[in-house]
Amino acid sequence: MKEKAKISNAVIKRLPRYRRYLKELSKKGVDKISSNEFSSLIGYTASQIRQDLNNFGGFGQQGYGYNVEGLYNEISAILGLDKQYKMVVVGAGNLGQAIVNYTYSKSGFNVEGIFEVNPRLIGISINDIKIMDYEGLVEFVEDNNIDIGIICVTRDNAQEVADKLCFAGIRGIWNFAPVDIEVPDCVSLENVHLSDSLHSLAYHMNRDSKLREEKAQKARKKSESKTK
Amino acid sequence: MKEKAKISNAVIKRLPRYRRYLKELSKKGVDKISSNEFSSLIGYTASQIRQDLNNFGGFGQQGYGYNVEGLYNEISAILGLDKQYKMVVVGAGNLGQAIVNYTYSKSGFNVEGIFEVNPRLIGISINDIKIMDYEGLVEFVEDNNIDIGIICVTRDNAQEVADKLCFAGIRGIWNFAPVDIEVPDCVSLENVHLSDSLHSLAYHMNRDSKLREEKAQKARKKSESKTK
Repeated sequence: MKEKAKISNAVIKRLPRYRRYLKELSKKGVDKISSNEFSSLIGYTASQIRQDLNNFGGFGQQGYGYNVEGLYNEISAILGLDKQYKMVVVGAGNLGQAIVNYTYSKSGFNVEGIFEVNPRLIGISINDIKIMDYEGLVEFVEDNNIDIGIICVTRDNAQEVADKLCFAGIRGIWNFAPVDIEVPDCVSLENVHLSDSLHSLAYHMNRDSKLREEKAQKARKKSESKTK
Repeated sequence: MKEKAKISNAVIKRLPRYRRYLKELSKKGVDKISSNEFSSLIGYTASQIRQDLNNFGGFGQQGYGYNVEGLYNEISAILGLDKQYKMVVVGAGNLGQAIVNYTYSKSGFNVEGIFEVNPRLIGISINDIKIMDYEGLVEFVEDNNIDIGIICVTRDNAQEVADKLCFAGIRGIWNFAPVDIEVPDCVSLENVHLSDSLHSLAYHMNRDSKLREEKAQKARKKSESKTK
């Protein structure tokens, strides 16, 4: 496997999706797949698929297609999913709790600690992981070589939490607070802005119903002019 | 406001972010902003910003810039955020509960019902919204003119839930199940694939640390060759 110098973010964003489909295929006992078959399944064009996977040296064989398990393993390795990650969750509200439960079943991503300011939550356990006092965050991250910090606090507190995590030497931040936080270049950042996603949905719903209305109106006008 | 025929998905995806920054500016008492100032704040180029907003007829004035509140209101209207949406959540596990709590404070997006198969959860309330038996989903959606269905069930059940929601006449689906579901053209779909996001983060962390290692190695070699 030989990676080219710079792979665009758009390609990286598609890799987890490729991996998801390959896993499904593998589960179903499919050994190999052509880029055309893969295309009709995943919804990208065949040429897009070939181009994307060429970024990593290309795993397909002319006239044979892609080896499903091989490609799955390669993409997993490219994404770094053959490694183990230690994580902390900051903020033990509903979202924080949901994330702890969500990641519970994700092999390779292990929540080592949960941190919170609310004294009513400190001391409680979620999936056998104790909720600790936020005051101890930096020390815990340093002492346990934590890789990823998951921010599940309110927008007003998110930057302060990020600063603490970065100060403690975290390598990556998964941010769920609805705000764009700033981190040094040496820290990787991934945002999940749920409200942005909900607003996109609202846009498409309105757009779609507007288009349908216009279509219906046109059809009505057409039939009216015919009956005249 | 005059929308052009077809606006690319990439532009739509950026609108909620524009809106978020405009809200912050408005809160701080900022009245107007040039595309250059906006650029340094939001991180898109000034020409990108002008191009994006031109899609909607362009709200900027030469030599004046954008009116912050006016632009905020226009984008809100474009996104359909001046309307009310009735929603149901299907799946009342931790993620479903988190989503109910999360949307509680979002004006315009109201959860009217929560549905679940687990008898231990049916009858319990979250934020005064009762968890109901999944069997009653279709009837409830039809009777209450629900607009949006939020899918928080496992991957294996997601498509069945989507089918039921579509059958009942839902207009939009917000899918949190880690699977690509299929819906008819008349239904808008927005996916939140959390694991894809986590895997992107893992990629960037590994990529970044690889680049840093290479840089350090080069620097070492350089200093070694100098001392020779």
